[in-house]
Amino acid sequence: MAIKFAERTEHLEGSAIRELLKLTQKPEVISFAGGLPAPELFPVKEMIEVSKAVLEEKGQAAMQYSTTEGDPNLRAHLAKRMNDKLNTNVTADDLLITNGSQQILDFLGKVFLDKDDIVLCESPSYLGALNAFKAYQPKFIDVPTDEDGMIMEELEKILAENENVKFIYVIPDFQNPSGRTWPLERRKKFMEIINKYEIPVAEDNPYGELRFEGEFLPSLKSMDTKGLVMFLGTLSKILCPGYRLGYLAASPEILQKFNVIKQGADLQASTISQMEMAKFFDMYDVDAHVKKIREVYGHRRTVMMDAMKEYFPEGVTWTYPNGGLFTWVILPENINATELQKEKALPRNVAFVPGAPFFPNGGGENTFRMNYSCMPDEKIIEGIKSLGEAIKEAIADAK
Amino acid sequence: MAIKFAERTEHLEGSAIRELLKLTQKPEVISFAGGLPAPELFPVKEMIEVSKAVLEEKGQAAMQYSTTEGDPNLRAHLAKRMNDKLNTNVTADDLLITNGSQQILDFLGKVFLDKDDIVLCESPSYLGALNAFKAYQPKFIDVPTDEDGMIMEELEKILAENENVKFIYVIPDFQNPSGRTWPLERRKKFMEIINKYEIPVAEDNPYGELRFEGEFLPSLKSMDTKGLVMFLGTLSKILCPGYRLGYLAASPEILQKFNVIKQGADLQASTISQMEMAKFFDMYDVDAHVKKIREVYGHRRTVMMDAMKEYFPEGVTWTYPNGGLFTWVILPENINATELQKEKALPRNVAFVPGAPFFPNGGGENTFRMNYSCMPDEKIIEGIKSLGEAIKEAIADAK
Repeated sequence: MAIKFAERTEHLEGSAIRELLKLTQKPEVISFAGGLPAPELFPVKEMIEVSKAVLEEKGQAAMQYSTTEGDPNLRAHLAKRMNDKLNTNVTADDLLITNGSQQILDFLGKVFLDKDDIVLCESPSYLGALNAFKAYQPKFIDVPTDEDGMIMEELEKILAENENVKFIYVIPDFQNPSGRTWPLERRKKFMEIINKYEIPVAEDNPYGELRFEGEFLPSLKSMDTKGLVMFLGTLSKILCPGYRLGYLAASPEILQKFNVIKQGADLQASTISQMEMAKFFDMYDVDAHVKKIREVYGHRRTVMMDAMKEYFPEGVTWTYPNGGLFTWVILPENINATELQKEKALPRNVAFVPGAPFFPNGGGENTFRMNYSCMPDEKIIEGIKSLGEAIKEAIADAK
Repeated sequence: MAIKFAERTEHLEGSAIRELLKLTQKPEVISFAGGLPAPELFPVKEMIEVSKAVLEEKGQAAMQYSTTEGDPNLRAHLAKRMNDKLNTNVTADDLLITNGSQQILDFLGKVFLDKDDIVLCESPSYLGALNAFKAYQPKFIDVPTDEDGMIMEELEKILAENENVKFIYVIPDFQNPSGRTWPLERRKKFMEIINKYEIPVAEDNPYGELRFEGEFLPSLKSMDTKGLVMFLGTLSKILCPGYRLGYLAASPEILQKFNVIKQGADLQASTISQMEMAKFFDMYDVDAHVKKIREVYGHRRTVMMDAMKEYFPEGVTWTYPNGGLFTWVILPENINATELQKEKALPRNVAFVPGAPFFPNGGGENTFRMNYSCMPDEKIIEGIKSLGEAIKEAIADAK
């Protein structure tokens, strides 16, 4: 028997990262492949108090169905935090609570994309977003980037030449996978361009609060005068991912579409998780908690940067990230990162994510992504040392 | 500016039920409109113990990302429960954990439906399912039903006449909205037909365990020899809906498609919610809990049936459900339930869900759905009395 599935499923594959993560779960492997927050920083003790308080005070409501748009207290906390940190001007009513920001990526496809519509993104871009969009069968145009992120002249050229661009997906702060951040000038130029073409923008900002040094830069959302920017936020990186809570801030016209889609998709995010997270904001100092995360990740970033400088051979370059979870390594052009992983790195018990899948239209075979957030210093140093040897051997082989 | 949304969003509307629920939240309204479980039966005290145990024993893991397929312990408990209650033969590996079974309805559309593909369903069928499928722009054929559910001769005729039927969506036990249950003979005949045509079937079974009297009937899944039946289960009705946990049991070929879709949609269900529910199964007697629910709902069903018999006028008929949450009322053909609601019932502070939206191709204007699970006896009697008056007045007006 041949069951007939939808056309969209023919080209969908499981995330290369999630498959790779299974390989790297052996205890002897030092894995820089994941994007996991450091679990030792999760506020476990606090959540014991929080869950007790929620269930004792409002247990029946916490276990019942609730509204699609999300818990009013949680939305109020998140709106306030956005306004404090990002200089936006949003209220609880501008927000929809979702199952992590990954769900917003899926909904972006569902709300905007008919088959063969065009999505613009950075080159490279977040693999999880590309996979989510692919279910709606769009075409991707990946806008060239440099060390400061998307190149605005290239963006403008692409917009001038292409109709049917439904939205632009960007991660201006500590991008996944590249670790790059757009400077202020680029943000201004970007907003000029999208205002001219009136194209909706999805600003994905999971890492913005995790800045180790330098000035916070204004979010695109805070510069938006036409209701074009959809802001994707998450609690996964500043609190924890296991509760699966993210949020979308968007104009009423756009938010209404997402709300209807959320209803059909799964009615609502978990009532109790939302009430617990709101209660955490009530009871504890989130800023102090985020400061602790910043310090630990910033330190690990430095340890990795120092080790790369010491152990990586000439001809290899990488991003020095000022925040977030990732750095991006560029090998000499003739070195293939997927082969490096398979033939040289995994045999040395060290893993990363090859960069090619982050390019929707091919390329980047000589690149890979490295995560530094969830590993102690000595493991980072040991892993980078092994990886340096692997790269040196690959370069020698290629000669 | 005109933002261009996807074509699919043009005809999507918010659920009529969810909109109606907002209207009926005034404290003076006796609402039979929702489908809420009775919150006084939620195991709140137990969940305080459960969440404490999970966070103390494995807090870091509970707050971290986990696998897409779902918590192994929870899946093992659910597989065992399916085999015990439904005579199926599934293992943890046959299950995918989702955000309530509503998410499986969305994924059914995503996995199977290209635009204009055909979905078969009962007439009437669950509105939340129809709305979820509509996002993928199918055509519906609703198979005629009688008091024993889907009429198999009609099903066979439709299958003989239509290619491109991608799947059949059914709720054989205590159907939402009709409260009807398919007898054994129909189940056997149904399996014969789908085995002949080899069409995948989604068996939605949120209420199966809530049988008040009579023998449990075998699930379609337990009669499936060809891997065609996808079983949709949920914890919403036997424990609580606020944690948003459902599960799909399907053949490996089908499950793999759903797994990839789940990854792109939101990575995974909440780690901590899954671990908490598994812990509840570890620590408490779920059967004893379900027995309590059955007794309360069964009693309320009887109260409603008795009141309808006393207060509803001649010419009105309704389902006597042996389980589940709903009964279905059929008015004389010339009485429109939506108008009855607006002009006669809401002014008397009583609410129900008009039946028309449960028919994907129109019809059913003289029908409505009534819920009895979350209301004390005296409110049920009072509400039915008012509703009886409303109906009498509408019948008198129509003469």
